[in-house]
Amino acid sequence: MAGKQKPVQVQEPVPLRLTCAFARRMHATPKSFIREILKVTENPDIISFAGGLPNPDLIDVRGIAQAATDVLRDDGRAALQYATTEGYPPLRQYIADRYRTRLGLDVSPEEILITNGSQQCLDLIGKILVDPGDRIVIERPGYLGAIQVFSLYEPVFVPVELEPEGPDPAAFETALAGGDAKLFYGIPNSQNPSGITYSEERRKACVDILAGTRTIVVEDDAYGELRFSGRSPPPLKKYLPDQTILTGSLSKIVAPGMRLGWVCAHLPIMDQLVVAKQASDLHSNFLSQRIASRYLEDTDIDAHIRKIRDAYRKQRDCMIATMQDVMPEGVSWTEPEGGMFIWVTLPPGCSSMEVFTHALREQVAVLPGIPFYIDGGGTDTLRLNFSNADTGRIAEGIERLGQVIRSMTR
Amino acid sequence: MAGKQKPVQVQEPVPLRLTCAFARRMHATPKSFIREILKVTENPDIISFAGGLPNPDLIDVRGIAQAATDVLRDDGRAALQYATTEGYPPLRQYIADRYRTRLGLDVSPEEILITNGSQQCLDLIGKILVDPGDRIVIERPGYLGAIQVFSLYEPVFVPVELEPEGPDPAAFETALAGGDAKLFYGIPNSQNPSGITYSEERRKACVDILAGTRTIVVEDDAYGELRFSGRSPPPLKKYLPDQTILTGSLSKIVAPGMRLGWVCAHLPIMDQLVVAKQASDLHSNFLSQRIASRYLEDTDIDAHIRKIRDAYRKQRDCMIATMQDVMPEGVSWTEPEGGMFIWVTLPPGCSSMEVFTHALREQVAVLPGIPFYIDGGGTDTLRLNFSNADTGRIAEGIERLGQVIRSMTR
Repeated sequence: MAGKQKPVQVQEPVPLRLTCAFARRMHATPKSFIREILKVTENPDIISFAGGLPNPDLIDVRGIAQAATDVLRDDGRAALQYATTEGYPPLRQYIADRYRTRLGLDVSPEEILITNGSQQCLDLIGKILVDPGDRIVIERPGYLGAIQVFSLYEPVFVPVELEPEGPDPAAFETALAGGDAKLFYGIPNSQNPSGITYSEERRKACVDILAGTRTIVVEDDAYGELRFSGRSPPPLKKYLPDQTILTGSLSKIVAPGMRLGWVCAHLPIMDQLVVAKQASDLHSNFLSQRIASRYLEDTDIDAHIRKIRDAYRKQRDCMIATMQDVMPEGVSWTEPEGGMFIWVTLPPGCSSMEVFTHALREQVAVLPGIPFYIDGGGTDTLRLNFSNADTGRIAEGIERLGQVIRSMTR
Repeated sequence: MAGKQKPVQVQEPVPLRLTCAFARRMHATPKSFIREILKVTENPDIISFAGGLPNPDLIDVRGIAQAATDVLRDDGRAALQYATTEGYPPLRQYIADRYRTRLGLDVSPEEILITNGSQQCLDLIGKILVDPGDRIVIERPGYLGAIQVFSLYEPVFVPVELEPEGPDPAAFETALAGGDAKLFYGIPNSQNPSGITYSEERRKACVDILAGTRTIVVEDDAYGELRFSGRSPPPLKKYLPDQTILTGSLSKIVAPGMRLGWVCAHLPIMDQLVVAKQASDLHSNFLSQRIASRYLEDTDIDAHIRKIRDAYRKQRDCMIATMQDVMPEGVSWTEPEGGMFIWVTLPPGCSSMEVFTHALREQVAVLPGIPFYIDGGGTDTLRLNFSNADTGRIAEGIERLGQVIRSMTR
């Protein structure tokens, strides 16, 4: 089976007809396994748990269309002109205000930079901070998109096992020993891929280890608004405000196609992020910024987010209930408090690549966990997305998946 | 005067309260002089020739608003969802088709990647090709945005004097000797900042020197559609199709606020560009891509471009005619066949920074040419933008500028 895994994980050699040499950093950058798989699963007959798409029924197309009409009618010329690198001031103000009311963070609009989705934050952070050979501490399993983009800056990754409560404290302490790891990158709320949320106690343990080091914390909070019940523990930024760069996104609560994310950082870091952003693409799409800002002004976004949460909670419940019914003994899974993903561990010896292949024959797509492991491993894990499909298709897909796994573990 | 120039040109030290170290590449990256100046000139009372903005009266707000309405009504969910890294296929097809009809280039849609404005093309090209110490041959004066973004990849710049017909062939040959310069970056049509268009003969001379080297040509064609009369000579891509990466933009012909550019490259290079784009920000704003695609389908874009050309030609004529009237002897300027900029050379000993300072007191903003020179120099040059202001303000502003320069050269 090991032989089967490699061709998907490892980047294919480019058929070079040119004699030019690509930069060294490109050799270290994995091609997205997810995108390769998504290409296979674009067929609408396939029930896909492989991607990470929001449910399109929960995008407020009418509200966004109205905002677009209003912006282009009232201030079209300005909305279509070049704009400042930092982003549209009222949108930055909105984000800062929401951090204050929602998380009690004392953040000014000057500490917010609007990006092309939160993925771009990671590119800008890598650009301004990471020299070749710098150590980046990252969860194990870790977010594939972060692994990809940070790889461009040729760091040494130091994976720390993610336990149900958060990073393993002993391993975390070892990883950060010496105090000079460049970054710790983590997703404390409903992590991608595992669905794990760090407990408050574990956050404090991490913070105690991080405090006093020169390590910058990159806290990716793409899923913080998608918590199904209760409140998330405080963000790491709350404990380590100057040391933490917090990233966020409208992709999960408004619409991903508008590519609007942001990075929230202490001003000395922000100054450098702005230089990097300006060099990279001058500024983010201003029309989208204006539409999103207008939409957020005119909409009860909390009511909209409640609607998304309710739907995703039902979808998660349906996926878990069906798994309880159909999965054979030895299969286990996380029960995430929010977000979009469930993490499945197969019985010993059961290969996720084999499950992927067999399930695809039954028109079900899953994502093997392998590319989330920098140092190998994860061959018995799967990431299942529950946000994209409705409950009917989730139940149907999980039943077929259960059958596949049962037939393999018999 | 030299003492006065430094504070604007050189990046200010960041007030570091953190003990983290920024990446080495950031030390090499100049903060945009233009942006710093634009902040000074945001006051609407100031007549600004310092920026590079299109005339907002020439943005078809109504047409774009209609396209937005249509897209969000007909296919809103898809337009607001995640999309492919490469870009919206019909938009890529449109761009490829237009290359074929307009320039006779044999380009397939697979060779087009949609970016966040053409500035992002340069970041992606730097990412995939440039290792620290690689040589980048660039025009002198050279486009500031390219200098900024390529600096992130820590190259050695090799400036080649730009003559009225194009790069100085002897200097170009010397710069490319050895055959292993990584990139040649140039803007053959209405260059920024000089307004110079390479002649057909000079293009051929450059191509002869480039052919057979391992140097990749980055042909930035942001202004190719803005030629005021006649036809541009063939693009370098026409002579060296596999060796040339061509970049383009909708910013000058549709609207800059939508941040839509593209890179056109031979497939082996494109494969790597797609990996870098995906790592950098997954994909470009899909809503904008859909709106732009719809707009281009439903609009007579050639008629619209003619309108822009006619207006800019008049604005250029007005600027040149006024300069002829008011500039003292010893001041010379380019007479660009297109684009957005005129390049002014002051009489010997007349400092552009001093002109900048004095003109600002008269509520006129100009851009000293200094930051376009990597290796120093250009202290007696100015870049004047003629696209943003109408002819009334151009005449008024140039009259004031003439007075300032006359008073300094008396």
